[in-house]
Amino acid sequence: MSTVRIAGDQSMHFADRLLAACKKKGNAVCCGIDPRWDILPLEIRQRHPELTLEAMAAAFEEFGMRVLDIVAPLVPIVKPQSAFFESCGPAGMLAQQRVLAKARTLGLITILDNKRGDIASTAEAYADAALAGTQFEGRRHPVWNADALTVNPYLGRDAVEPFLASARRCEGGVFVLVRTSNKGAGQFQDLRCNDKPLYQHVAEAVGAWSAENVGACGFGDVGAVVGATHPAELALVRKWIPNVIFLVPGYGAQGGSASDIAAAFRSDGIGAIVNSSRGITACFKPDEPKWEEAIERATRATIADLQR
Amino acid sequence: MSTVRIAGDQSMHFADRLLAACKKKGNAVCCGIDPRWDILPLEIRQRHPELTLEAMAAAFEEFGMRVLDIVAPLVPIVKPQSAFFESCGPAGMLAQQRVLAKARTLGLITILDNKRGDIASTAEAYADAALAGTQFEGRRHPVWNADALTVNPYLGRDAVEPFLASARRCEGGVFVLVRTSNKGAGQFQDLRCNDKPLYQHVAEAVGAWSAENVGACGFGDVGAVVGATHPAELALVRKWIPNVIFLVPGYGAQGGSASDIAAAFRSDGIGAIVNSSRGITACFKPDEPKWEEAIERATRATIADLQR
Repeated sequence: MSTVRIAGDQSMHFADRLLAACKKKGNAVCCGIDPRWDILPLEIRQRHPELTLEAMAAAFEEFGMRVLDIVAPLVPIVKPQSAFFESCGPAGMLAQQRVLAKARTLGLITILDNKRGDIASTAEAYADAALAGTQFEGRRHPVWNADALTVNPYLGRDAVEPFLASARRCEGGVFVLVRTSNKGAGQFQDLRCNDKPLYQHVAEAVGAWSAENVGACGFGDVGAVVGATHPAELALVRKWIPNVIFLVPGYGAQGGSASDIAAAFRSDGIGAIVNSSRGITACFKPDEPKWEEAIERATRATIADLQR
Repeated sequence: MSTVRIAGDQSMHFADRLLAACKKKGNAVCCGIDPRWDILPLEIRQRHPELTLEAMAAAFEEFGMRVLDIVAPLVPIVKPQSAFFESCGPAGMLAQQRVLAKARTLGLITILDNKRGDIASTAEAYADAALAGTQFEGRRHPVWNADALTVNPYLGRDAVEPFLASARRCEGGVFVLVRTSNKGAGQFQDLRCNDKPLYQHVAEAVGAWSAENVGACGFGDVGAVVGATHPAELALVRKWIPNVIFLVPGYGAQGGSASDIAAAFRSDGIGAIVNSSRGITACFKPDEPKWEEAIERATRATIADLQR
C-alpha cells in the first residue's frame, strides 16, 4: 500500500509546519503510539484470538486507528514506535504503514520513532523509506511516508547526511538522539570529552546541522531528542542550541514531570514537543469497557498539565 | 510466515557455533546480502517489471535466494542488510524474513544487520523480533529468527541489556558498533574522553558484556563491529578486548585490504569474521548473463585473498 502526501504539505518547512500545528491545537503534545499486546483493551484482543503475529498486527492496527481518531482533534503530533510494529513481523510493518497513513489524512504531524543509523547508501535506504520515498527507475515510492524520524548519531555526520538529504527533499524533519531518557543514558553520553560531555558534542553538531536549513520560525529541520528524566541536562541543551526543536520523551510513566520539562521550551514558550505514550495509551485497565473515554480524558489531562 | 530454528542449533553457545562454522568451511567470510535495484541482474529485474515496491521486494528476494544457493557451500555466514529490504516496505520485510529462513535451512549463520538501539521494552521488542521471538500469551513467535543482530551502543548498557537477554534466551549473538567503517566515523567515536577515545570506552564495555557469557572457545556472545578501513584502530581494539569476536565491515569496495584486516584476528588466527557485500554481490555488470558464475568466482577470490 502506498499513500500520497497531503496536498500543500511539502510547501512548508518542517519546523514551520510543526509549530503551526502546535499553535492550531494550542499545545505541543506528541501522542506516542506504542502498541503492546498486554496494554490492548480486551475488547480488541478478543476480536483477534488466533495467537499469531498476523493477529497481533491486526489488533495493533485497530488500536492505533482508534487512538488516532480520539487524539487527532486534540494534539498536533503522533509518534508511532516502530519496534512494536516490527515485533509482529511483515504484517506489523503493514500496520505501521497504515497507521501512519491514517494519521496524515487526519492532519497530524507524524514522527516515526525508529532510531535508524547506518552509513552511505544504507542510511539513504532507511531515510528514503521513512521520508522522501524509495527511488527506483526514476520515480519515488512512498514507504513509511512520515514527516520525520528519529536518528542515532553514533556513526557521525557523514552517516547522518543521507537522513538530512532525504528530509530536505520533502520538507521533512530529523530528530537526533542527544540525551536519552533511560537511567543508564549517561554511560557514554555523559563521558567528558575535551572538557565537555559527549552529549554536548552531539548537541552542538545537531545545532550546526539544524542551522543549515532554517524555517521562517527560526528553527531548523533537525531536532534533538532530550529526555524529560534529566531536567538539568535539558536546561543545558536548551542553552547550547536555542534554535533547535526538542522532542522530549520520558514525561509521565518514565518519571518526568511538567516542571521538569519547562526547561525544554525557550523563554518565548515554544521550541519543544513533549511525548506521552503510556500515560495516554496505557491509561486504562484492559477490561475497561469505556477505554476510549479514558484515553480522551488522559489526553486532555496531559495537555492541561503541560499548559500550567 | 514463521520458521523454526534448526534442531540442535540452540544447544551450542553462539561463539562456539560461529567458530565451528568457520572451521568447517575453512574461512571466516561473511557474505553481505545488500540488494539494491541497480545492482540486480537485468534477468531478474526484467522478471519484475511492474515498478512497484512489491515487485522490487520480489526481485530482492529472488536475488537473495540465488546468492544464498551460490555462497552456502563456500562461506559460513551471511549478513542481510535490513535497510534495503525495508526500502521496499512490508513486502520487503517479508522478503527479508524468507531470505533469513532459507539461509538457516542451508546451515548458514545469519547476522541481521539492522543496527537497532532503544530503551527498555522497546529494545526488547526489537531484540526478540531479531532473535528469541516475540512473546505473547505465553508463547514465543519467531519473527526475523536470525542468529545475531547488530546493535548501536549510544544509549548505554541498560539499553543494550534487552538485546543480551534475548540473545541468551536462544544462544544467539549481538554485534555492537565500536568503530564503524565510514570516513566520518571519528567525529564522535574518536573524541578523547578521560584520556581515551570514546570507541575505547565502548570496546571495553563490549568486552565486559561479552565476558558475562563465554563459550567453550573462550569468546563471548557479544561481538564488536570494527571497520577494516581503520587498520590502526582495528589493532588497538584487538589488543583491548582479546576475547571478543570482531565483525569487520569495509573490506573490498569500501577500501579495506586483506593486510588491513590481519590485525582483527588474534595471533592464533581466529576471532574475526570479515564481511564482503558489494565485492561479492555486485561483482558483475547487470547485463552479465553468467552473473551466478561471477558471484561464485568472487566468493572464492575473497576467501583466497583473506587466507593469504
